[in-house]
Amino acid sequence: CSLDGADWMLDPDELASKFSSKTKAIIINTPNNPIGKIFNRDELQMIADLCIKYDTLCFSDEVYEWLIYKGHQHIKIATLPGMWDRTITIGSAGKTYSVTGWKLGWSIGPEHLIKHLQTVMQNTLYTCPTPLQEAVAQGLQRDYQLMGQPECYFSSLAEELEGKRDRMATIIQEAGMSPVIPEGGYFMLVDVTALNQDLSHMNDNEAYDYKFVKWMIKEKKLAAIPVTAFCGEASSKQFEKYIRLCFIKQDSTLDAAEKILKKWNKI
Amino acid sequence: CSLDGADWMLDPDELASKFSSKTKAIIINTPNNPIGKIFNRDELQMIADLCIKYDTLCFSDEVYEWLIYKGHQHIKIATLPGMWDRTITIGSAGKTYSVTGWKLGWSIGPEHLIKHLQTVMQNTLYTCPTPLQEAVAQGLQRDYQLMGQPECYFSSLAEELEGKRDRMATIIQEAGMSPVIPEGGYFMLVDVTALNQDLSHMNDNEAYDYKFVKWMIKEKKLAAIPVTAFCGEASSKQFEKYIRLCFIKQDSTLDAAEKILKKWNKI
Repeated sequence: CSLDGADWMLDPDELASKFSSKTKAIIINTPNNPIGKIFNRDELQMIADLCIKYDTLCFSDEVYEWLIYKGHQHIKIATLPGMWDRTITIGSAGKTYSVTGWKLGWSIGPEHLIKHLQTVMQNTLYTCPTPLQEAVAQGLQRDYQLMGQPECYFSSLAEELEGKRDRMATIIQEAGMSPVIPEGGYFMLVDVTALNQDLSHMNDNEAYDYKFVKWMIKEKKLAAIPVTAFCGEASSKQFEKYIRLCFIKQDSTLDAAEKILKKWNKI
Repeated sequence: CSLDGADWMLDPDELASKFSSKTKAIIINTPNNPIGKIFNRDELQMIADLCIKYDTLCFSDEVYEWLIYKGHQHIKIATLPGMWDRTITIGSAGKTYSVTGWKLGWSIGPEHLIKHLQTVMQNTLYTCPTPLQEAVAQGLQRDYQLMGQPECYFSSLAEELEGKRDRMATIIQEAGMSPVIPEGGYFMLVDVTALNQDLSHMNDNEAYDYKFVKWMIKEKKLAAIPVTAFCGEASSKQFEKYIRLCFIKQDSTLDAAEKILKKWNKI
């Protein structure tokens, strides 16, 4: 059994109840980390309607914008009617080019919003690493020209990762856990409920997923991230049986993970 | 007539009057930007005595530590008795290797202080640009081995800059202004009082140095930084006739500055 990212949805009524005349901004993230959900046009329109109704800014974190799997489409909320003037879209060179150590990204938006980001930038970071900026600019220029062709990194990376995603999902299911198949991004949520792993000997002040991940790293030599690390108090209970795996790995690393997972129940 | 960086001194009584049991930390900067002063051992000892007496932390900004001119010596306050355990020393790859666009530096201190910086780093920047870190590490290793030899960049840069400093000071004096000869760093304060430049036609809400610099950029095509930008209210009056020039420039740029300054009074 498995779910996919689309099985998680924002409740329109609950979201609307959070908006008021005092609401300054909403932060959205699509493709979503850690769920792997890509918000569809209807969902984005529902958020946009609220932003417009309550005159609210929208910070749209789209750092995984190119990591989109077959059958799915990434839509920028800034392209919806009435949204350009109130949206700042965040992109990442680190995620786009698999160079997360480069510390580069960008914000896209109308001048009346971006000028304030420039003020903050000028007085905090001051500048980004300039030699790496030049390399990213060259890369963007190259891949913009190659758009639609197989060598374009924007699409070739996602294609390569789709195989790794599917392989990881199969391994996980064979080990008795339930993956959430991501529509985008390079993380996979895994429901570990069915394992019924007894962790009662561990520190009771921690959420189950924290304990599970620590136990798994120590006993199984496999690393993951506890999903409640992404949650506020209100939603922690819902996610404490989930862990987040990362599948942007060399095949030899996935081989090693497969070995561990295949003998999971045989110790 | 000229002054040098050493002509500026902290008044020990005034400094002591600022310390109390509530004083958490002092930030010092040697070699100093913008003055070009290098704090001598007695001055540092005076600061250290206060830090120890009042159990105060010291953040020592030493990013110009290698830009030291002949006859002067840079001393790290962390090396004074009792100071290591309370001092965080800040260094800069950008200043050390003339790559200010690389956004790299370091903090040196005891584990019980640095661990808190690591927490902040982990939750804000997360990582520095890793390919540039590798290049800096290679550079530091190289120059550590060359220490004391003419090819060592730590000393060769200062040697190269000393000629530019002296040339700039001469040009400035010939134009009727008074330079403050820096003992370290690559900036030179210049007292423009003697020029008696009338700026009464400009916005009166600005300090004289801000107006002077704007006027000079526009009318003379020469750029400088207003020194009161570095001042609190209490010391602004003392510095509003000073501008800060930068002499880490190619000779062709210094040639162009010389031309402008030579015809300064001939328009």
